Amino acid sequence: MAEKITPRNVDYSQWYIDIVLNAKLADYSPVKGCMVIRPRGYAIWERLRDELDRRFKDTGHQNCYFPMLIPESFLKKEAEHVEGFSPELAVVTHAGGDKLDEPLVLRPTSETIIWNTYKNWIQSWRDLPLLYNQWANVVRWEKRTRLFLRTTEFLWQEGHTAHETRQEAVEETERMLEVYRKFAEEVLCLPVIAGKKSEAEKFAGAVDTYSIEAMMQDKKALQAGTSHFLGQNFAKAFDVQFQNRDGNLDYVWATSWGVSTRLVGGVIMTHSDDKGLVVPPLLAQDELVVIPIFKSDNKAEVLAYAKGVADALKADGRRVAFDDDDSSSPGWKFAEWEMRGVPVRVEAGPKDAAAGNVVMVRRDTGEKLVVKAAEAPAKARELLAAIQKNLLDRARAFRDANTRAVADYQAILDFFGKETAGADDSPGGFAEGLWCGGRDCEAKLKADLKVTIRNMPFDRQKDINGTCCLCGAPAKHRAIFARSY
Amino acid sequence: MAEKITPRNVDYSQWYIDIVLNAKLADYSPVKGCMVIRPRGYAIWERLRDELDRRFKDTGHQNCYFPMLIPESFLKKEAEHVEGFSPELAVVTHAGGDKLDEPLVLRPTSETIIWNTYKNWIQSWRDLPLLYNQWANVVRWEKRTRLFLRTTEFLWQEGHTAHETRQEAVEETERMLEVYRKFAEEVLCLPVIAGKKSEAEKFAGAVDTYSIEAMMQDKKALQAGTSHFLGQNFAKAFDVQFQNRDGNLDYVWATSWGVSTRLVGGVIMTHSDDKGLVVPPLLAQDELVVIPIFKSDNKAEVLAYAKGVADALKADGRRVAFDDDDSSSPGWKFAEWEMRGVPVRVEAGPKDAAAGNVVMVRRDTGEKLVVKAAEAPAKARELLAAIQKNLLDRARAFRDANTRAVADYQAILDFFGKETAGADDSPGGFAEGLWCGGRDCEAKLKADLKVTIRNMPFDRQKDINGTCCLCGAPAKHRAIFARSY
Repeated sequence: MAEKITPRNVDYSQWYIDIVLNAKLADYSPVKGCMVIRPRGYAIWERLRDELDRRFKDTGHQNCYFPMLIPESFLKKEAEHVEGFSPELAVVTHAGGDKLDEPLVLRPTSETIIWNTYKNWIQSWRDLPLLYNQWANVVRWEKRTRLFLRTTEFLWQEGHTAHETRQEAVEETERMLEVYRKFAEEVLCLPVIAGKKSEAEKFAGAVDTYSIEAMMQDKKALQAGTSHFLGQNFAKAFDVQFQNRDGNLDYVWATSWGVSTRLVGGVIMTHSDDKGLVVPPLLAQDELVVIPIFKSDNKAEVLAYAKGVADALKADGRRVAFDDDDSSSPGWKFAEWEMRGVPVRVEAGPKDAAAGNVVMVRRDTGEKLVVKAAEAPAKARELLAAIQKNLLDRARAFRDANTRAVADYQAILDFFGKETAGADDSPGGFAEGLWCGGRDCEAKLKADLKVTIRNMPFDRQKDINGTCCLCGAPAKHRAIFARSY
Repeated sequence: MAEKITPRNVDYSQWYIDIVLNAKLADYSPVKGCMVIRPRGYAIWERLRDELDRRFKDTGHQNCYFPMLIPESFLKKEAEHVEGFSPELAVVTHAGGDKLDEPLVLRPTSETIIWNTYKNWIQSWRDLPLLYNQWANVVRWEKRTRLFLRTTEFLWQEGHTAHETRQEAVEETERMLEVYRKFAEEVLCLPVIAGKKSEAEKFAGAVDTYSIEAMMQDKKALQAGTSHFLGQNFAKAFDVQFQNRDGNLDYVWATSWGVSTRLVGGVIMTHSDDKGLVVPPLLAQDELVVIPIFKSDNKAEVLAYAKGVADALKADGRRVAFDDDDSSSPGWKFAEWEMRGVPVRVEAGPKDAAAGNVVMVRRDTGEKLVVKAAEAPAKARELLAAIQKNLLDRARAFRDANTRAVADYQAILDFFGKETAGADDSPGGFAEGLWCGGRDCEAKLKADLKVTIRNMPFDRQKDINGTCCLCGAPAKHRAIFARSY
């Protein structure tokens, strides 16, 4: 029997956990902070990964694989990098029965081992650019974890590129953020804000970090992807020089960029409802489920009819589940498949069979349509495209409705109020306001309200005239303020 | 300039390393025994993985992901398992700045953490079977390593299935070995011998291990994949019981099966030659390279002509590289692309352009064909299929020519002789003979000659009448004896 899901308004955090566990997307593991990704959750990750991988290859990138184990000394070669990551490291001290001469850390990210290797691969400008990516697991020893959104071990991709010039590296950083932005909207149905991180929030070792930020249903922000311009920091730390077109030695320019299994959590949190999982059709393991509705005296005819509909949908290229289990009722099955997030349910009972019809039900809106069986494949395509569009539109409308311009600190206080457990009555959202660029303002905001600067949207930095909404000093940037995951 | 490759007959081990490094398939890393898989090597792994994954899904399996970190105590729950793996474990003792209460090992294989989790997922026969697989990295602290063939960290897939009955689990074990066997022949062009491992060589914790065994060009065996019938060993170790159809509690039956990046090494070693890499067209990153042959006074025309040929090949679905670099000579390029293992080279010079021809050269045989440009796409398909077939035929002929029936120990001594560095003059191969099944015979063979029982071929166990070729006692099995990687 389908388990009960805590409503969003009662306890948003518990609602999310209930969905992840009951839809069998993931499970807890015996290792603190690590999770098991179950087949239904992994199927979402696989589809997401394959689509993103295609987009990386279309922009000229190739995959490779570097060791997971990194000599501890490597991390120390870039001062900010080690400061940022050392509190989160897991360390291998023994192997093969012996104590190691030098401890090895499990990669929290791979800049160090990759730039140590790039040194051997780059001698001249002719060897550049290197446009490489790897799909890998990484480990960051997090204190507070949450299924998919923050786990000690997670799966991700990390792009690491090497360039002749600063300009080329900056363009790559921008290009990859734009790949993420389009992917988030087109595939994940996540409307995101693309912008630059503040100094305090940037990647440890980067010159600049760009991010895309999405809004969850409790109005908190989720950082959904980052792209870093690393300048020559890692080239200098690992002494990676090349002979440039003028015949002089110069340090190589770098970028890195990544997204992770956290995106699966973001998708679940953004689209799901109190009945269970809702996912964009492009990511769904099954796009449709066909449920024959029969009694013992008409079972054979109804099954045959429904099977014919399912086969026609499959022949048209759809991913289709067929639920002919006779140990549970149609009503139970409807609830179960809604909980699992299948975008379209197709019902076929004896009257439908007699009339040559099926009933199609949208998961996102609950809308029911009676359709001629022969038209089911065409209608399925149409509905799936409509759902994909609606999820993005709905998420964008929600975000826009919960975004407010703020001019001063009182407006911020009024907007964010106190945190609550439920979703609807939770205050806040995205506050958009001017900022002086000062670290003190940012720190005060975080201390007072747990609100941080998510990013400074690229498309809203023109005509900055006014004062910082936090301190009243002349403003330099327009920023998005929010609580976040 | 293309680097020199050590000929196979001079030093087979060095020849292999030269190919891996010069074709930029992999590189050494700063961590002992770990390697970097470079884009050209990873492209082979990706194609191999995707094709195998498709075959897993076609046989009803789903992917999932379990944590890489396993509590040390889990390994100890299955007695043979811990004995087999404990010498190879890497251990995390510190994380997040603190000493861990219990050390965590990096998975050498995942039976323990998976069966610990299956306990929560299996209550009744209705929950069975579980047909799960994961693609993951694993770590085994090996003393002697070799690029791709044996590395401390490697990439692999591990299937872990759970069944109601012994019979069903045995059938799954056999089914997956057959998936591997067909895949090895159809995709990797590796003719393999499928059979059962001896007690001494089986997986630590298995009831039975089945393997596929290939022959490399130095006549040594490579274990290319294994499928294990685990009986109820792990279910008992982790107390995984279910209510069976009779309403009684019973332990769950298990299998596991895996192949790894070692297969990439096996492909390289089997097909390559003294000019460099040779790979089956189905695995090649580029199936063809088009090389325009121009001088300064005809460059534009020849480039345009060659580009047209390349575009026509691409339009026909081929993966095509186009080498219009003007800083190296055609001869240099021919050698370079041969070294890289592109299955078909397409040359287009001014005379070809004038006549509407191209020259196509097979990497496997060196055969040259003059082909009308308009027919190049059809000819390319034909040649690639012919190469795929020829590589398998050639490898099978080599194996068969180096397989010998042995009746007594003197025949074995004569066949295996002493190991040498070169390939052609190395003695041995696959010796096929009768075996009493005794561990002492097996141990003596290994001590005397470094020869082991590779497996007992499934299709050669009928009518065993005779005496053990090692000790003269009555025989029980027919076995393949060989030196191995």
